[in-house]
Amino acid sequence: MSVYLVGAGPGDPGLITVRGLELVRSCDALVVDELVAPELVAEAPNDALVVERKKLTQEAINELLVELGSARLDVVRLKGGDPFVFGRGGEEALALAAAGVPFEVVPGVSSLAAVPASFGIPITHRGVSAQVTLVSGHSASGEELDFELLARTPGTLVFFMGLRQAGRIGDELIAHGKDGTTPAAVIARGTRSDEVIATGALAELARLAEGMPQPALIVVGDVVDLASSLSLTALLHAA
Amino acid sequence: MSVYLVGAGPGDPGLITVRGLELVRSCDALVVDELVAPELVAEAPNDALVVERKKLTQEAINELLVELGSARLDVVRLKGGDPFVFGRGGEEALALAAAGVPFEVVPGVSSLAAVPASFGIPITHRGVSAQVTLVSGHSASGEELDFELLARTPGTLVFFMGLRQAGRIGDELIAHGKDGTTPAAVIARGTRSDEVIATGALAELARLAEGMPQPALIVVGDVVDLASSLSLTALLHAA
Repeated sequence: MSVYLVGAGPGDPGLITVRGLELVRSCDALVVDELVAPELVAEAPNDALVVERKKLTQEAINELLVELGSARLDVVRLKGGDPFVFGRGGEEALALAAAGVPFEVVPGVSSLAAVPASFGIPITHRGVSAQVTLVSGHSASGEELDFELLARTPGTLVFFMGLRQAGRIGDELIAHGKDGTTPAAVIARGTRSDEVIATGALAELARLAEGMPQPALIVVGDVVDLASSLSLTALLHAA
Repeated sequence: MSVYLVGAGPGDPGLITVRGLELVRSCDALVVDELVAPELVAEAPNDALVVERKKLTQEAINELLVELGSARLDVVRLKGGDPFVFGRGGEEALALAAAGVPFEVVPGVSSLAAVPASFGIPITHRGVSAQVTLVSGHSASGEELDFELLARTPGTLVFFMGLRQAGRIGDELIAHGKDGTTPAAVIARGTRSDEVIATGALAELARLAEGMPQPALIVVGDVVDLASSLSLTALLHAA
């Protein structure tokens, strides 16, 4: 009897972990985010209680998990990506801890590397990038981004949830000295069958983001250029 | 017939992806890193060729993958963590692409978030950290770390392969203005049954790293303090 905070992975249902899938298959209750693949929800037992998050607030989710966990059910909280990479899993864990409900975190494949990899972009690459900075693109947390520092940061920059701020991200980085010709990519629904990518220069970031669906990741850095070497073979393979 | 660059996850064999395990179970040849769990190697078919990397150079591995892939075998290259997060998967992918061998990257759970999570540390947390910087702790790639910038970087810093440089990392960050009381953790063999953690202040980083086995991750930032709130329940649960 426990609450399991499980990462569902970046989109492709095959990218959940073996342990995560086992827990889904044996749970009493499944609380899922909207972005989780329906194939994974379908893996829950027929008699399991399935709650879709939809418009529940974070506080309501926290309370629901405490309530279900206190009822001594095996509860799986299935979240897109990894629960602790911009997944607010920490908040749910703290609520469970405060209520004395046993819980376990089962990590998942984050979009961070998996989504760029799906188009042949390695976020680290010897001689090209030995550092990666993950940034939350929206300011929901109340923190302001330090673009002066980000513009000078070497390696790869990855913005989560930055689609609506893409223009501002590009403009601010360039205004603070980042080269406008730095390669950039906007990748939507990465690892899913309807994934799509737009690549170009940092100066074009607003245009690259135009019309892109959610969820999307923005990658800025020279590693983006490796995609042309790496995705050709992938394309041949897919053909 | 293809070469699959597969992430084995951070250590716990249950944290490989469902797709990764399927590929291991049906491969003709398996090329594995030393840090991959023996339980996963044991999942390969009995008649599969198993090559352990051991002391092979990266170039020799690249050549081996091209050779096996050209022989029209189903080859799984199983790497610790994620192939594209300090995994040098990009180099193997480029070698395969150059040789015209079809390949596919199957991402894995990186140590990045999973290893700290194993001790109740979320690398991002609302109001505490909205940014994460991943750094390669050793200088094998020839790049020097910019400690002036790192010392000013907000959020969580995560050093991969930094165990032997822990003292220098702590000293340089503090010399460049980072508060010596910033919470820090050294985590070895995270997610494995023999995992171990040492937490303290950044100023004590050299001592925290003393005697720690490989592989290890260094985490610097206020999120480390969340472990005390989160791991108590985990401990109760384990008891």
